[in-house]
Amino acid sequence: MSETIILKNVRPWGETATDVTIEAGRIRSVSAVAQPNGAKIIDGEGAILLPGFVEAHTHLDKTLYGMPWNPNAVGSTLVEKITNERNSKARLGLDPARQSARQVALSVANGSTHIRSHVDIDTEHGLKGVEGVMATREKYADVIDLEIVAFPQSGMLIRQGTRELMDEALSLGAEVVGGLDPCSMDLDPKGHLNVIFGLAEKHGKPIDIHLHELGELGAFSMRLIIDRTRAHAMAGKVTVSHAFCLGHNDYLAIGRLLDDLAEAGIHIMTTGPAGYPCPPLIRTLDAGITVCSGSDGIRDCWSPYGNADMLERAIFLGMRNDLDRDADIRRAVEVVTVGGAKAMNVERYGLAAGDTADLVLIDGETLAEAVVSRRLRPLTMKRGKVVARNGAALFEVD
Amino acid sequence: MSETIILKNVRPWGETATDVTIEAGRIRSVSAVAQPNGAKIIDGEGAILLPGFVEAHTHLDKTLYGMPWNPNAVGSTLVEKITNERNSKARLGLDPARQSARQVALSVANGSTHIRSHVDIDTEHGLKGVEGVMATREKYADVIDLEIVAFPQSGMLIRQGTRELMDEALSLGAEVVGGLDPCSMDLDPKGHLNVIFGLAEKHGKPIDIHLHELGELGAFSMRLIIDRTRAHAMAGKVTVSHAFCLGHNDYLAIGRLLDDLAEAGIHIMTTGPAGYPCPPLIRTLDAGITVCSGSDGIRDCWSPYGNADMLERAIFLGMRNDLDRDADIRRAVEVVTVGGAKAMNVERYGLAAGDTADLVLIDGETLAEAVVSRRLRPLTMKRGKVVARNGAALFEVD
Repeated sequence: MSETIILKNVRPWGETATDVTIEAGRIRSVSAVAQPNGAKIIDGEGAILLPGFVEAHTHLDKTLYGMPWNPNAVGSTLVEKITNERNSKARLGLDPARQSARQVALSVANGSTHIRSHVDIDTEHGLKGVEGVMATREKYADVIDLEIVAFPQSGMLIRQGTRELMDEALSLGAEVVGGLDPCSMDLDPKGHLNVIFGLAEKHGKPIDIHLHELGELGAFSMRLIIDRTRAHAMAGKVTVSHAFCLGHNDYLAIGRLLDDLAEAGIHIMTTGPAGYPCPPLIRTLDAGITVCSGSDGIRDCWSPYGNADMLERAIFLGMRNDLDRDADIRRAVEVVTVGGAKAMNVERYGLAAGDTADLVLIDGETLAEAVVSRRLRPLTMKRGKVVARNGAALFEVD
Repeated sequence: MSETIILKNVRPWGETATDVTIEAGRIRSVSAVAQPNGAKIIDGEGAILLPGFVEAHTHLDKTLYGMPWNPNAVGSTLVEKITNERNSKARLGLDPARQSARQVALSVANGSTHIRSHVDIDTEHGLKGVEGVMATREKYADVIDLEIVAFPQSGMLIRQGTRELMDEALSLGAEVVGGLDPCSMDLDPKGHLNVIFGLAEKHGKPIDIHLHELGELGAFSMRLIIDRTRAHAMAGKVTVSHAFCLGHNDYLAIGRLLDDLAEAGIHIMTTGPAGYPCPPLIRTLDAGITVCSGSDGIRDCWSPYGNADMLERAIFLGMRNDLDRDADIRRAVEVVTVGGAKAMNVERYGLAAGDTADLVLIDGETLAEAVVSRRLRPLTMKRGKVVARNGAALFEVD
């Protein structure tokens, strides 16, 4: 990518219009250019410029997006949903490579440039999910940065052999160690966390653990995670996803937990779920915690909702947390951009000279207006290459 | 409207495809038509057919939709928001007639055929809001059925003269008596409710009261409303909007309240707010209560969110209430259609022979798929007349 590109007339974060000069996939400068000197010009037409959205929590391997509609009549408990899903995969002909590619195209169309995907590992399907998403990671390496979390969705200690599969997935190249509800899933919080942190240590990889456990139970598990993060010196390398227990209505207890999470350097991922208690966004950010967000599962055997649109995710974060002020809506946008990048340790992310040219343009009068109107994305750029135009990916998937 | 129209190849509620014959603004039959006999044919192309959406709770008079973006930096208390709004109207040049027309066009574009709008009445702006929305009601009578609630947004007893303005609005033709938080706004629940129910009796009109009060306070006000509804024999004529207190986490107490609301014939309006406790949808419906929904304020001085899309509202109801099953999503769609019609006492509403031809077509594979994908509305029809095509109104507003 030796060509010089000038992205003319764009407004970084919705502020004053300027030009962005891009060279070799990086931002060379952010300032008005009088003489293009033969550079390729892309007219931004005054659109808002953001660094690409970061989809920091999804499940690429099991979306049903693009497949015939799968009517849902599943029970409402976690175990019913997990069991139904494990049993449905073969019946529905769910191909993790094909399905993850479809969701990647949707994400890119909506302006995402980075994805962290949890991928199921269990003794029934083995590493099929991981292999499928790895194929997508390789095939679409020039349009998305994709990180795989080895995720024991069906339990780890309760299904003998899962731990070894996790180990294998991490050896094969999964970037992150996953975990799930240490108390309620494996019924052995100490055992579960010892394995997770042991794998992280062995492979020198970060951790991202699903924690749906509510109230005191979730707070108990969270305390164990904080203790181990300190003991293993993993500050900045542990993310707790969902963290519903931080939505517990106990001002003092939650305050102490938030302070300890911040001090331990643990990141929080929240989707801003309407139907569950969840981390109070502004208070969590104000505690100094890095907060990222994601779509979670998109149109899968759990739930039919979702569309991989991280701008819409900012609306959900806003509505869930009663963010009406423009300044607060900007903080929600920061969660789906810089927060995600920080949680995933993405280097050279942003809109400064030297940063990777991972960018999205959004129509709109102001940043807040663009969010609430869920405005069109005229362009997504990955390492200086245009990969989507007007909400449609410029590449084909099966 | 003497012309006969045949809406070919549509799927009522997403079920088997059929044809709908429309005459004089009403449905004459719902069955396959072999011989059109010169009737005008509209090809539904297999779209899903629903009765028009019912926007049962909004604030047409004060949307800023279509005006320059108004940055929001307002405080978070109810009184701060109300005061800011009252003071902003003149500053922003908010014209209730123009603004309500803009929102009507948006509603119709998205498939709504009925709107209940609360309209502010206070001693500062008098009846300007009511007059403006009445002008819109008249001007757009052939595209929307619009019902006006005389709404004392800034308090009634605490602002002398408001009660008389309410009385005047009802004499002028406002269809519904509004009210607001009997304890927290007027600080006199007995006095507030006596005036509301007195006005309803005097004018022979129904009541729709905003109740944001939480927990025990809201339950106390709710009890007073139930008592008065019984005493005034107003079963089927009282709606409690928001009813956040029904989201209180007390299974037994809420169960008793729901049973009593059902017995008293009181309707509940919920927007499915992500950031507030709210009525549990399925449990409220199962108690036998009519539930309707609405957009609430759209892009106004309170909050920038909203787009008058009642199909999206079904998503919000679904996500708020964890409705993943297709059958439950259908119940959410029933809330934004038949629930609203029942709460507003709309006659001849539905998809049966004899019902008014107030209809919306929605692309989609199944009803649930159409909801979660927020699919395009190819057509909105009001009394047999096509008023919107492909998500755009067929009439102009200022």
